Amino acid sequence: MQAWQFTNTHEPLVLAEVPEPSAEAGQVVVDVKAAGLCHSDVGLMEDEGWLALLAKTPITIGHEVAGVVSAVGDGVTDWKVGDRVGICPTTELGAPGYAFDGGFAAQTVIGQEALVRIPDSVSFAYGAAGTDAGMTSHHAVIANGQVTKGTKLGIIGFGGLGQIGARVAVLAGADVYVAEVNEKVWQNARDAGVIDVRGSIKDFADIGLDVIVDFAGFGVTTADAIETVRAGGRVVQVGMGRLEATINTRVLITNNVTLVGSVGGTKDDVQGVYDYLATGELNPTITEIGFDEIAEGIDRLAKGEVVGRLVARVGE
Amino acid sequence: MQAWQFTNTHEPLVLAEVPEPSAEAGQVVVDVKAAGLCHSDVGLMEDEGWLALLAKTPITIGHEVAGVVSAVGDGVTDWKVGDRVGICPTTELGAPGYAFDGGFAAQTVIGQEALVRIPDSVSFAYGAAGTDAGMTSHHAVIANGQVTKGTKLGIIGFGGLGQIGARVAVLAGADVYVAEVNEKVWQNARDAGVIDVRGSIKDFADIGLDVIVDFAGFGVTTADAIETVRAGGRVVQVGMGRLEATINTRVLITNNVTLVGSVGGTKDDVQGVYDYLATGELNPTITEIGFDEIAEGIDRLAKGEVVGRLVARVGE
Repeated sequence: MQAWQFTNTHEPLVLAEVPEPSAEAGQVVVDVKAAGLCHSDVGLMEDEGWLALLAKTPITIGHEVAGVVSAVGDGVTDWKVGDRVGICPTTELGAPGYAFDGGFAAQTVIGQEALVRIPDSVSFAYGAAGTDAGMTSHHAVIANGQVTKGTKLGIIGFGGLGQIGARVAVLAGADVYVAEVNEKVWQNARDAGVIDVRGSIKDFADIGLDVIVDFAGFGVTTADAIETVRAGGRVVQVGMGRLEATINTRVLITNNVTLVGSVGGTKDDVQGVYDYLATGELNPTITEIGFDEIAEGIDRLAKGEVVGRLVARVGE
Repeated sequence: MQAWQFTNTHEPLVLAEVPEPSAEAGQVVVDVKAAGLCHSDVGLMEDEGWLALLAKTPITIGHEVAGVVSAVGDGVTDWKVGDRVGICPTTELGAPGYAFDGGFAAQTVIGQEALVRIPDSVSFAYGAAGTDAGMTSHHAVIANGQVTKGTKLGIIGFGGLGQIGARVAVLAGADVYVAEVNEKVWQNARDAGVIDVRGSIKDFADIGLDVIVDFAGFGVTTADAIETVRAGGRVVQVGMGRLEATINTRVLITNNVTLVGSVGGTKDDVQGVYDYLATGELNPTITEIGFDEIAEGIDRLAKGEVVGRLVARVGE
């Protein structure tokens, strides 16, 4: 079968012919139907720092994977051939494309404990995007942000993750306020049911926000969030637009603010996103491309040319 | 009676003759026996920013107060003349010396809901220090740090508050590691039962600290704590040696670190400190001065000449 393989930093992906995988005890083979592209794929191509995270090279990348079970190993009782599944990338098995060959191929093989069932009404493209972009957004808003009905929530950044986080929060019953510098997406934010959208989170200083989730992460956004959230409030840091922030510790202390870093999530978060997707009420923007366009797609991501989450159709 | 009154920033305290207070309904008069001096008193003398916190001027200052009930107003049922009490400075009544005339006087008057009973075996000096220095340290370590038996705890700064926080944590069963730049107090830290004391929290990078409480707050200490605490760990920020910190948000995010600002505390924290003081196992360093030496004592604090908490004997 064909697979997009990473060989080394600064080297183009290679479309290689590799053996089809088989399922050992406790494993399933998944025929990949959709695989998402992620800014971390761009990082992998450009920054040697990512090499240490790879179990081997060459390796088939693609960590945001959805498909259909096509074979099961001994001892697999909860899953059968034909089941529609997403792969949670944060279990102890590690992530596809990092710990083992991932989803930019016709098939991948994975331990059954990483699987989450995709509801029938949810597309494979959404099933793929739900495993990473969806999980991460859900985890930041629901698990770390502790957002529930009536929470006054600020969202900084209405991009690929922010749009999901904002919409999940609206569906959870929160009052959502979005800060986004790109005015072109303001109408999208309003369409997602948020109360207001402005250029800076500081424009919401008079709201008394209980929680602010920063999906942008440009340093100043973290600092602004700490100075804007109400006393006793929480700031959840997700975005890594810059890798440091200079914050006002006097405000942090005297307002008893909590700042928590949020990365990844759990199977519960993937399931939570699938549940919202199944209702039809969560419908984030997806740009779909063909399997042949994956290498080119990573370039498009690097150039910032993609609207919404970029997902490749696989196995057509 | 005599009272040390604050009139304005950059003006010396005035030892004035003022009327004795009386108890209205729900209030008690406290004959002050001990009143602590605090770095915030230094701030008040030097920085106009504190003026906005005062209900009036001139005002009798002194917010760390212990004494004996000498009169009770109508409706006071839980307290009687002769009771030994500390005044919690964080109730909705406000703090002595800020919201109303405080403890640098022979008497003060306060609503009964701010009182905490001082155990018979605890001195008035400790009773006073317990209401602010003790409460703040206890709150940071126990409430915000969530320290329990077996917690691996780092403490940055073994000064007035840090010594109490470290010892409370030891008594709570935590494994405590202290970072303190002043080697002169290293032996004191060892005597308090901590496992190790070094110059920087980074020296404990291999311990896998669950929680770090930063009583120093010099910016770099906050940054170091975030980079030293284990993945999923908590950093509690108490000290305000500087008012900003530049932190590594990549580490905060990928290690899912929580940074929480901690200020003040509650009556439960005062009670918690009193309980430890009553056992005799918590015995922080106190420097005692006479009532006449209060103005001079604030100068000594400003010059950094005081070892441990500075407490004035009152009403002798």
